[in-house]
Amino acid sequence: MRLCTILSGGKPAVGVKLGDGKVIDLSKQMPRGPKSVAEILVGGKKVQQAVLKSCAKPKAGATVSEKSAKYLAPIPNPGKILCIGLNYRKHAEETGSPIPEYPVVFCRFNNTLTPHKGKMPVPSHSPQLDWEAELAVVIGKKCRNVPKEKALSVIGGYACFNDGSVRDWQRKSGGQFTLGKNFDGTGGFGPDIVTPDELPPGGAPLRIMTRVNGKVMQDSNTDDLIFDVPTLVHELSKVMTLEPGDVIITGTPSGVAMARKPQPWLKAGDVCEIEIEKIGVLSNTIVKGA
Amino acid sequence: MRLCTILSGGKPAVGVKLGDGKVIDLSKQMPRGPKSVAEILVGGKKVQQAVLKSCAKPKAGATVSEKSAKYLAPIPNPGKILCIGLNYRKHAEETGSPIPEYPVVFCRFNNTLTPHKGKMPVPSHSPQLDWEAELAVVIGKKCRNVPKEKALSVIGGYACFNDGSVRDWQRKSGGQFTLGKNFDGTGGFGPDIVTPDELPPGGAPLRIMTRVNGKVMQDSNTDDLIFDVPTLVHELSKVMTLEPGDVIITGTPSGVAMARKPQPWLKAGDVCEIEIEKIGVLSNTIVKGA
Repeated sequence: MRLCTILSGGKPAVGVKLGDGKVIDLSKQMPRGPKSVAEILVGGKKVQQAVLKSCAKPKAGATVSEKSAKYLAPIPNPGKILCIGLNYRKHAEETGSPIPEYPVVFCRFNNTLTPHKGKMPVPSHSPQLDWEAELAVVIGKKCRNVPKEKALSVIGGYACFNDGSVRDWQRKSGGQFTLGKNFDGTGGFGPDIVTPDELPPGGAPLRIMTRVNGKVMQDSNTDDLIFDVPTLVHELSKVMTLEPGDVIITGTPSGVAMARKPQPWLKAGDVCEIEIEKIGVLSNTIVKGA
Repeated sequence: MRLCTILSGGKPAVGVKLGDGKVIDLSKQMPRGPKSVAEILVGGKKVQQAVLKSCAKPKAGATVSEKSAKYLAPIPNPGKILCIGLNYRKHAEETGSPIPEYPVVFCRFNNTLTPHKGKMPVPSHSPQLDWEAELAVVIGKKCRNVPKEKALSVIGGYACFNDGSVRDWQRKSGGQFTLGKNFDGTGGFGPDIVTPDELPPGGAPLRIMTRVNGKVMQDSNTDDLIFDVPTLVHELSKVMTLEPGDVIITGTPSGVAMARKPQPWLKAGDVCEIEIEKIGVLSNTIVKGA
């Protein structure tokens, strides 16, 4: 199942995609039905089958084309965005960092989210905006201390994420990545959440790529994660209760701008695309920021 | 003005304190009035004076004693909790860290919040739970790129915070503090938000202390911050839009358990109090956690 969040009459509404280039606006299709993507993920098979059953017979006026849909982030206000650093061996190497022995965890806040087709600003305080293609995992069940062998059961879906990083600010705060990862609008997310039944277990293997103005910059596979999705859920849930709609972004492969010579930072006018096999293509236009 | 959030009929309600040991439940005093502390902070003098005027004549049944009030975190769901590390010289020295040349910024999520009189759990995964008394700043106006000389104008209030830290987990994630700072319930916050008109500019100088079972463990002054409150607001707002209700916790002075020999980690049954002059006393009981 493929879910997104779209603007409908000025409000967020669930969009359901059936693979025909159209989005069914669930606020019109099922006005008393689920109000958010997170609610559908939590609802599990029962709710998801009811939604699919309804959408199989779209009501008049409930359908928009994918091209004209106005996307929001598929989870517009995650309770947490947990980010994993240096989780592909070649990326750790290209940045001159040691291979992590334990997941490197930093955070994003919701000010950073920008949807599919949304603008991603280059901060006025730095030109060093870099792309990072990442597999995002969306939690579907409240959980704590999840054993690794049960970790897949708490996952509601997967999505594309662009963990846009301002490299000099990532280094200037005493080694903490927080600032370089939290500039407004630097986290591309979407367009869709794809439920686990459509993907290999743990979202691997899946090809993952970045293209800037059509040129391939990253091209790897989620099978190369140092700490795989079950391990991440297991370890993070030792620390904190994970809630439906929480997002874990799982790290980026090699090929970032920082590691290239010269460094081709994203600049206003560029189009940056993240593609993950079977999940979709996230496209953001780079603009001048504040 | 002194504001808190209390449970009233199972729901969060604004509490207003007038200094007589009582809390006025604003959901009963002004049923059509402001619904949250953040709303009152955003409303500025006009809204705050209207609330005070109403509370000067408490309605029957609108008052509870401070002792019987059931506190929630004064801002129950901040959009961001931004945390500053190593912001007192002697604390940086006691941890063996260099004196920062730029603010060290990490984050907390809302799963970590525990209110005044709330329980703070020692994780089952580590006994190394440490206290950190901190001055919390609550944002009162949406802002970005705030000049330092205007920074005080965006502050809605100040509060006590206990930045409870799980020390081994703070070190195990490749240098990122995130995990050690995000165990469930380890962030004490409250009881009250005090508006800036009652405090010295930027919340300094104010004596700041930690007591564990009555014994003084930290005793310093907010005047000793390396990066003062206006500097923090100025720098953070270069990166991100700050929103009403966002919280900045400004760092802890020396005297943490980690730097003592032997290390007196917080253990189940302990009572940990954070006191900041003119702001109040935050008390949390330590319990066994998950």
